Amino acid sequence: MAPQKNEKNQLFLGLFIHSIKLGELQYLHDTAVCVDKSGKIVAVEQLFDQKKAEETLYPKLGWKTEDVDVTIAEDGQFFFPGFIDTHIHAPQYPNSGIFGKSTLLDWLNAYTFPMEASLSSLPKARRVYTRCIQRTLSHGTTTAAYYATIHVPSTNLLADLCLSLGQRAFVGRVCMDNLGPDYYLDESASHSLVATRATINHIRSIDASFDLISPILTPRFAPACSVEAMTQLGALHQETNLPIQTHISENVDELKLVKDMFPDSKNYTDVYDRFGLLGKRTILAHAIHLSEEEADLVAQRGSKVSHCPCSNSSLTSGVARVRWLLDKGVGVGLGTDVSGGYSPSILDAARQAALVSNHLAMPPRAGDKRPDAERLPEDDRGRVRLSVEEVLHLATRGGAEVVGLGEKIGGFEVGKEWDVQLIGLGFVPDEDDSTEVKQIEDTGNVDIFGWERWEERIAKWVFNGDDRNVKKVWVRGRLVHERR
Amino acid sequence: MAPQKNEKNQLFLGLFIHSIKLGELQYLHDTAVCVDKSGKIVAVEQLFDQKKAEETLYPKLGWKTEDVDVTIAEDGQFFFPGFIDTHIHAPQYPNSGIFGKSTLLDWLNAYTFPMEASLSSLPKARRVYTRCIQRTLSHGTTTAAYYATIHVPSTNLLADLCLSLGQRAFVGRVCMDNLGPDYYLDESASHSLVATRATINHIRSIDASFDLISPILTPRFAPACSVEAMTQLGALHQETNLPIQTHISENVDELKLVKDMFPDSKNYTDVYDRFGLLGKRTILAHAIHLSEEEADLVAQRGSKVSHCPCSNSSLTSGVARVRWLLDKGVGVGLGTDVSGGYSPSILDAARQAALVSNHLAMPPRAGDKRPDAERLPEDDRGRVRLSVEEVLHLATRGGAEVVGLGEKIGGFEVGKEWDVQLIGLGFVPDEDDSTEVKQIEDTGNVDIFGWERWEERIAKWVFNGDDRNVKKVWVRGRLVHERR
Repeated sequence: MAPQKNEKNQLFLGLFIHSIKLGELQYLHDTAVCVDKSGKIVAVEQLFDQKKAEETLYPKLGWKTEDVDVTIAEDGQFFFPGFIDTHIHAPQYPNSGIFGKSTLLDWLNAYTFPMEASLSSLPKARRVYTRCIQRTLSHGTTTAAYYATIHVPSTNLLADLCLSLGQRAFVGRVCMDNLGPDYYLDESASHSLVATRATINHIRSIDASFDLISPILTPRFAPACSVEAMTQLGALHQETNLPIQTHISENVDELKLVKDMFPDSKNYTDVYDRFGLLGKRTILAHAIHLSEEEADLVAQRGSKVSHCPCSNSSLTSGVARVRWLLDKGVGVGLGTDVSGGYSPSILDAARQAALVSNHLAMPPRAGDKRPDAERLPEDDRGRVRLSVEEVLHLATRGGAEVVGLGEKIGGFEVGKEWDVQLIGLGFVPDEDDSTEVKQIEDTGNVDIFGWERWEERIAKWVFNGDDRNVKKVWVRGRLVHERR
Repeated sequence: MAPQKNEKNQLFLGLFIHSIKLGELQYLHDTAVCVDKSGKIVAVEQLFDQKKAEETLYPKLGWKTEDVDVTIAEDGQFFFPGFIDTHIHAPQYPNSGIFGKSTLLDWLNAYTFPMEASLSSLPKARRVYTRCIQRTLSHGTTTAAYYATIHVPSTNLLADLCLSLGQRAFVGRVCMDNLGPDYYLDESASHSLVATRATINHIRSIDASFDLISPILTPRFAPACSVEAMTQLGALHQETNLPIQTHISENVDELKLVKDMFPDSKNYTDVYDRFGLLGKRTILAHAIHLSEEEADLVAQRGSKVSHCPCSNSSLTSGVARVRWLLDKGVGVGLGTDVSGGYSPSILDAARQAALVSNHLAMPPRAGDKRPDAERLPEDDRGRVRLSVEEVLHLATRGGAEVVGLGEKIGGFEVGKEWDVQLIGLGFVPDEDDSTEVKQIEDTGNVDIFGWERWEERIAKWVFNGDDRNVKKVWVRGRLVHERR
């Protein structure tokens, strides 16, 4: 069950849009992109059509016309890099939208641990994971960094399903030998490690080079891991150089807990650092309440941040200061954090990232008695806002860096792999005099009237788009989702 | 072209869910609701089926079986009161999602005034308004309080289209004889009034008793209206008792403008009050930065507030303190504020209302040096959060009160009119072993696994629902939207 190779070479034609740097989208009109059977981009040529590609590119590539599948972005459609979800809990997917008025710590006990524990059942895990993968693919997520549960068999099943359904994934068996409820807890630190190794071995058996599926070390978060477990996970990282994912500084009560549990550490970030868990391949989810000193340490170690605005607003955790992190040189991507976040869509995460950045920029509320000196200066208020172009960068190229695949995915360059979505927006007919009860053609909520510039269409897509606009999705050149 | 009467009586069967008071949804299982040809609810009976209705209700109502259309909410479906959008600018609909990094005043000049001005063209107005009405109906909006433009013919067309497409509406010709650009401004205060009367007369000619379509006095906002215009609008309200809609206290730069322009007024609220524009039938949009004194005055006058969270986050305006307003006894409903808000969906507004209330409850940010005494106490922080049940109340019964139709719509009681949506959620099949590229059945993003309680299904709907879940929509008993 190794990753599939594609049967044919592929030619993609039309409009390609991608982020070339933070805040700048590039629009490649009338462009041809060639993708070989291994799923790699081997040519990108502007002002090309099919005939020109056949005449000039195929000979260079040694391709024969009959050995090439052609996909054309129709008028109003465009190719866009697949989204990268840098933080998602697959077993929590059935709880999407169910969180009541909880905040992190009571939410874990009321909703999350019971659901995760129940995924010891393989049939249930199969049903939940299959739907979670299908759903995220349908929203254009070509890569996901998944937390599974503490159970080895169902974690391995998640890896199997990602491979067979074709989603690029990091799959982490969750390590937690502390603080969890009796019914959902690793027996010991050494058990945590044995189980982690079992999943690593399983993934190696289905995808030897981790081309599509990679294991990822997953200490749930500092309060859920004993000193022994963290020490051993640090050693395992040292041994394998596998990536690491965990949570940091999400909730103020969590901060107190960490302070009490690790009195010798300078701060939350230092806890991970002490155990060798803060490295270039570490994905830190949330990072809301970091101090200057902590953020500097994160930057220095080259660790990355998964920004999860939907979750942070839902659980009343706070607002991560993304501009501040970016200014320090910290790599930032977006995470849905299902089901702290209710939405499986990274487009939704991008939208929320823009909105919560505006919340950081809002003027003081009536009754705010702080002296001016303690408020964000007016000039800076505008700067903390994230633009449409910036959140799309975080959703693609930013996310690729966070998961350590910056060289492999996130844009349309020769040598990158074809992890791409074909996006189509709805067009409003010119005349519509009908007064009858009628069905709006189901192309989603992005209404294009025809006069909009492409920059405006992209803004409309970011704010009103949904999975209906995602017509096709490929990972490594393989078509993994199709609509209609 | 008076409002249509329905050809048949109607029986609705199944699960009905509505808000009976702030924070409490009632679930009426196995219920029968009878609606007569005028669109009024004439019977609501629990634990009823079709046979029992035919045997015991029809005779009482003088109905014959062949004269009754029957609609059954299938398993997993339910009837819910139609949504009420208490603040929407129909002519801005094509700009949904297009606002860049603007805030209120530059947004008006860059995006809004040019678009509104262009709707002097009747063909363009027809295209834009038709789509706006269809779109909002498809999201379950059965009543909308519309701002049109300064143009009488296209404002009248909006009223015609609402009537023919069957959406209950308040239609306001926008009064603005001040501050607007040369190309988009009433010539004078008296012209403002003549034009306003022209639209009132037109609406009277198509719907004499304002049963479905009502005019609404619409001074854009204080800075856009001269003292003369506001004085005359106050007199017109006195004369006609027509409802009023305007904006208040949305943006801090707007506050400064009002202070400069109306130096004699104590505050923004007092400006409207002085001109007799602050009454029981006044809908005030935004109300973000009101002082205690202003909110008390709003409460005292019985004016209502349209809370527009999506717009307020998009334009970085701030967060309205809904709990604080409700505590003062101010009636609050929800508005999309298209296109300050990007979404035409009141379900989306409900979701955002919950999220932004969480933002009010968030702990202070790192670096916040305020003494504890100036922060919202921890106990109050939880209380300002709005629950799923509360935001659904604002979306229906709360909105009905805001637009002055509390007696007519918003719930399932005998005597109310049948403004209702039929909601259906998606069901995840038990077994899904397919590894093929496949189409997720297009029932939207609400995935029901089967074990969820109804309260949890409603939460899932609020957070992941969209127009795909709105199967049918009726206004006054008339089917005005249907999906599939």
